Amino acid sequence: MIRRYVFGHMIETDTVQVKPAVSEDRIPYFAVDVEKMTFTMPLGPDDRVYGLGENVRGINKRGWIYRSCATDQPYHQEDTLQMYSAHNFLVVEGANRFGLFVDYPGIVTFDIAYTDINTMQIRLSDFNADIYVITGDSILDIVRQFRQMIGQSYIPPRWAMGFGQSRWGYVTESDVRNVVRRYRELGMPLDSVYLDIDYMDHYKDFTVDKERFPDLAKLSAELKEQGIHLVPIIDAAVKLEDGYSVCDEGLEKGYFCTREDGEPFVGAVWPGLSLFPDVLSAEARAWFGNQYRALLDQGIEGFWNDMNEPAIFYTEERLEDTLEKVSEYRGKKLDLQSFWKMMGIWNSMHHSPGTYREFYHNIDGKRVCHETVHNLYGYNMTRAAGEAFGRLSPDKRILLFSRSSCIGMHRYGGTWMGDNRSWWSHLLLNLKMLPSLNMCGFLFTGADIGGFNNDTTEDLVMRWTELGIFTPLMRNHSALRTREQEVYQFTDMDGFRHVLSMRYVLLPYIYSEWVKAALCDEMLFRPLAFDYPEDERAVRIEDQLMLGDGMMIAPVYEQNAVGRMVYLPERMKLFTFHKDGTRDEVVLEKGDHYVPCALTDVIFFVRSNHMIPVSSGGHCVAEVDFDHVQFLTFPDGGSSEYEYYTDDGLTRDVKLDGHITKYRMDAAGAVCTA
Amino acid sequence: MIRRYVFGHMIETDTVQVKPAVSEDRIPYFAVDVEKMTFTMPLGPDDRVYGLGENVRGINKRGWIYRSCATDQPYHQEDTLQMYSAHNFLVVEGANRFGLFVDYPGIVTFDIAYTDINTMQIRLSDFNADIYVITGDSILDIVRQFRQMIGQSYIPPRWAMGFGQSRWGYVTESDVRNVVRRYRELGMPLDSVYLDIDYMDHYKDFTVDKERFPDLAKLSAELKEQGIHLVPIIDAAVKLEDGYSVCDEGLEKGYFCTREDGEPFVGAVWPGLSLFPDVLSAEARAWFGNQYRALLDQGIEGFWNDMNEPAIFYTEERLEDTLEKVSEYRGKKLDLQSFWKMMGIWNSMHHSPGTYREFYHNIDGKRVCHETVHNLYGYNMTRAAGEAFGRLSPDKRILLFSRSSCIGMHRYGGTWMGDNRSWWSHLLLNLKMLPSLNMCGFLFTGADIGGFNNDTTEDLVMRWTELGIFTPLMRNHSALRTREQEVYQFTDMDGFRHVLSMRYVLLPYIYSEWVKAALCDEMLFRPLAFDYPEDERAVRIEDQLMLGDGMMIAPVYEQNAVGRMVYLPERMKLFTFHKDGTRDEVVLEKGDHYVPCALTDVIFFVRSNHMIPVSSGGHCVAEVDFDHVQFLTFPDGGSSEYEYYTDDGLTRDVKLDGHITKYRMDAAGAVCTA
Repeated sequence: MIRRYVFGHMIETDTVQVKPAVSEDRIPYFAVDVEKMTFTMPLGPDDRVYGLGENVRGINKRGWIYRSCATDQPYHQEDTLQMYSAHNFLVVEGANRFGLFVDYPGIVTFDIAYTDINTMQIRLSDFNADIYVITGDSILDIVRQFRQMIGQSYIPPRWAMGFGQSRWGYVTESDVRNVVRRYRELGMPLDSVYLDIDYMDHYKDFTVDKERFPDLAKLSAELKEQGIHLVPIIDAAVKLEDGYSVCDEGLEKGYFCTREDGEPFVGAVWPGLSLFPDVLSAEARAWFGNQYRALLDQGIEGFWNDMNEPAIFYTEERLEDTLEKVSEYRGKKLDLQSFWKMMGIWNSMHHSPGTYREFYHNIDGKRVCHETVHNLYGYNMTRAAGEAFGRLSPDKRILLFSRSSCIGMHRYGGTWMGDNRSWWSHLLLNLKMLPSLNMCGFLFTGADIGGFNNDTTEDLVMRWTELGIFTPLMRNHSALRTREQEVYQFTDMDGFRHVLSMRYVLLPYIYSEWVKAALCDEMLFRPLAFDYPEDERAVRIEDQLMLGDGMMIAPVYEQNAVGRMVYLPERMKLFTFHKDGTRDEVVLEKGDHYVPCALTDVIFFVRSNHMIPVSSGGHCVAEVDFDHVQFLTFPDGGSSEYEYYTDDGLTRDVKLDGHITKYRMDAAGAVCTA
Repeated sequence: MIRRYVFGHMIETDTVQVKPAVSEDRIPYFAVDVEKMTFTMPLGPDDRVYGLGENVRGINKRGWIYRSCATDQPYHQEDTLQMYSAHNFLVVEGANRFGLFVDYPGIVTFDIAYTDINTMQIRLSDFNADIYVITGDSILDIVRQFRQMIGQSYIPPRWAMGFGQSRWGYVTESDVRNVVRRYRELGMPLDSVYLDIDYMDHYKDFTVDKERFPDLAKLSAELKEQGIHLVPIIDAAVKLEDGYSVCDEGLEKGYFCTREDGEPFVGAVWPGLSLFPDVLSAEARAWFGNQYRALLDQGIEGFWNDMNEPAIFYTEERLEDTLEKVSEYRGKKLDLQSFWKMMGIWNSMHHSPGTYREFYHNIDGKRVCHETVHNLYGYNMTRAAGEAFGRLSPDKRILLFSRSSCIGMHRYGGTWMGDNRSWWSHLLLNLKMLPSLNMCGFLFTGADIGGFNNDTTEDLVMRWTELGIFTPLMRNHSALRTREQEVYQFTDMDGFRHVLSMRYVLLPYIYSEWVKAALCDEMLFRPLAFDYPEDERAVRIEDQLMLGDGMMIAPVYEQNAVGRMVYLPERMKLFTFHKDGTRDEVVLEKGDHYVPCALTDVIFFVRSNHMIPVSSGGHCVAEVDFDHVQFLTFPDGGSSEYEYYTDDGLTRDVKLDGHITKYRMDAAGAVCTA
């Protein structure tokens, strides 16, 4: 049951699709302090808290503060308070069981047993929010109710589930061709190459540098023949430049965010001084979305939206002010206090959150300070594109995902986990964020495999790819000036070929489970706690996940490990795929097991009396035969059915009806269509 | 066997005490490239590499680059290359087994299968080094030979093994008194309070602020009556101030490092503009060491040496130069490239490693550029103190430990693991560094419990204390502006009292094992790989340690966990001490076990037919009865002996002779003196 509690007058977020009537009773569980703008409840020692989408720390979020305040945040550390997105949905499980959604466009703080180990406190920035309390029979039931309320998750084209290679640093057409050539020469699968900001003409959105990419349409067509899609980046901000049509038109029509005095607000980002499309205005949003056509017309079928927290490096005013202030320190014998003060002045110039109070949106004719609606920006930039694709490509799905989001955006695109690092701990964080994001409707997600910032190692890329083969978005991506990490930069080509190929073997299962999860408001990745709530060991497991109906994954995430401990909440069959092409199948009983896993082994578990549809692989998704699947099975004395979903991978109107094939497995493991 | 290979002419480090003759054969295992100044060897897939003292990542160091270049480095992350110290000793185990010590005062890089996953490469900054290759029957045998060669490890007074409370932020005598009062009122043990830089008069070494600490001698005496020692910090740099005797005398006698033109080198640190004692000159070292007398005379019996990499925030020249350069960016419409260039200029001003090329030492009358001997600085600052204490306190041990060190310093003091963070991963890093530091001779060590930087949580402090009760240095320490983390800041006083008390219960065992390890050149903490080299599972365990002869520790290091998996390399008995005062003893077979461990439980394992001497506890070390010990036993069908070491805890001349009591346990577990 969903109950809605209204506090003040929320600025509409368009997150909830069908709003229940307002509850007139007092909000349960929480003590409300209107003055302090807080909701407070005690947590029992065994209570667990799940959700909050993209955030650091555990699957169980107890023990830290999380701020919903979209931030260009390259430090994903244990002490990180806020990341790129605002995902204000959580579920408490323990003495009480309920879901909580804070529908609110501003900054929210979730203190989950940080300040006091026995207390959860939620704090708003003003008291205008709709709060939804959801009760149900299980965590999964609560999540389903929430997902039904917020609308169906975005489903990208099927090719977007292929392996993609990216790097901030492919600056010419020949860089791109080289990537494709290397993968193809090595007989390795690849479905897409991502273009980071360098493809643009001076970082101008919707332009292409004519010297470095003389004919994008031709390049795109050529690569498509090899089964490769080009996926360019689009940044939120529009370069301020006379004669640049997007800038000129947006200025003329008043489609950019404004300063207090009504003049266009200017901030510096990659293109230098830039304007910020007012995507919270329906008209500006439609206009910005239409700009994507410039690239669609060149054969582009996928995009990633970036820098849409929005990131603002500095404003000219603050830069000048800072330079003036620090110049006053010249020629003085500073004491340390003055030195630190000067350092503080300098450091507040860059990425200053104060900037968010300096510009305004036009929402239905009302001027609204950006900070008040800050978390809606990335959502609405991506919504602009998503809505436009509905008009511009009414039949065919377009790939779209975004760095910043809030719940609601899940209907328009996916999200990647931002600018992570080449850390083993981020491989595990990748795993932990999958179910939290799924809870919030983000099914098309994944992290930068190998890590974006910092230098990676061969073994980290290998192990991370072994997780990546299971995540809907599977992209190897790295930053300028870091070690190159395309898999061909390393030594074990057989190993990488083997691991990458496994993605394509598993695609029938992953795609089928993924679309069913999207259409039925289910989670693709689930903590063991959600599937085995009565199992005291399972509810504490933080490094294994259920994937779809029949599979459990437990990747290796520690350097130099040659195996790992796995907890089985029930009898399962372990599949181990070795790089020499052989595979082992071992049935393991409920309980703890040490599972050997060599650096190039792919392992996963299949539940008792379940079956996993697989293909014989392919070098790109188009080569995968989704219509004639084989099955990895664990017959265990019973019979079972699998509802296999498949489609053409492109049609926008996705539905189960007419796309399900039922397979039946008998007690001996023989599978036939039912 | 130890073989010594000489390359060029090393500047003497005084690390090796008895040098073996120079080997005339070619160095084994490695290909030497004189041009590139590298030593290169292939690593087999199963080879493991141990050692390198204070560094990030695993017990097995494979898969990263480690630079020996002492640095004030508050970012202990997976991508961190260098920390505060230079510990150039490692052991390779696998296809070959040998130890390697690079006796060298300059910057060394250890690329351990980072650039190429199958190769180890060591690179020097110039080719003047002594390289020692040590072979032996086992890793432990190799470590013992190395330790014998470098001389006996420092042994502090026994009270230094009590629990200490510290915070950068106790600025007055009453702050200190308040800490003591709170612990005593709560009936919690405490042995020391650490003074960070604020006790000094304007951060001047060897001074005391007369307003905030009007009578340190009196305070010290008063606290000693409550069993509490005050332990002040000493920073490396000396404030440049006319009339400050240390500055005046050092300048007059030429005891400070100099610039190229021979004038004293000045850099800014906490006191503002400061001078750097030339502790590499024997005369200056003796002079600097004698300064500690100012505090010894006030009853102080312990010190921690800090900022001795040496940390240098900036130099006036570089600051002025930077301010001038960035001022040129005023009034210009910057493009992003110019902006990043300006940011780069600014960022290179602070903590610039270039500064290390700008000053010089006087070593036996020869002027030597600091960079060439950089890693000797912290070592020799601490040696200055240690040598002075031998003169000033010839009978009584003085507590001394240092942030920066290189091997050699282990004879004069311990080391803490630097400015860590309130991260769960740093709790585990603390565990992992213990054996690496032990290998290099540093037995008196530990990390800042609860984490120094960033805000901690109650459960992190609790779990970290549960590891801290086993580490020789057991100190809760936190930084200015972070959450206060004395245990009384939290909720569960019974829990903290219980965990802290366990330290005092275990002290007879820890002290006995520790002194024996120091006197016999053994490791107190050992990876399971060292004790069970034939056990394939044990050699990969990265989160458990052997402690002394009879104990294995396996603390919980994950938030919200209520237990953990533990691998037993042999049959052991699990002891669980609950906060209600009860304890469980369970015998577990060799293999994997899930061990429940509530937030306030203390757990450890005792080996078959072993016994652990314990006390009934105390509120400070002086209250612990070391002479009448009881035993925690695991009689398992055999009899066994324990050689229990104890002494008065103070006498400088530490020896086994006359201090060992032999206890015998029979098959039934009855213990009597042998």
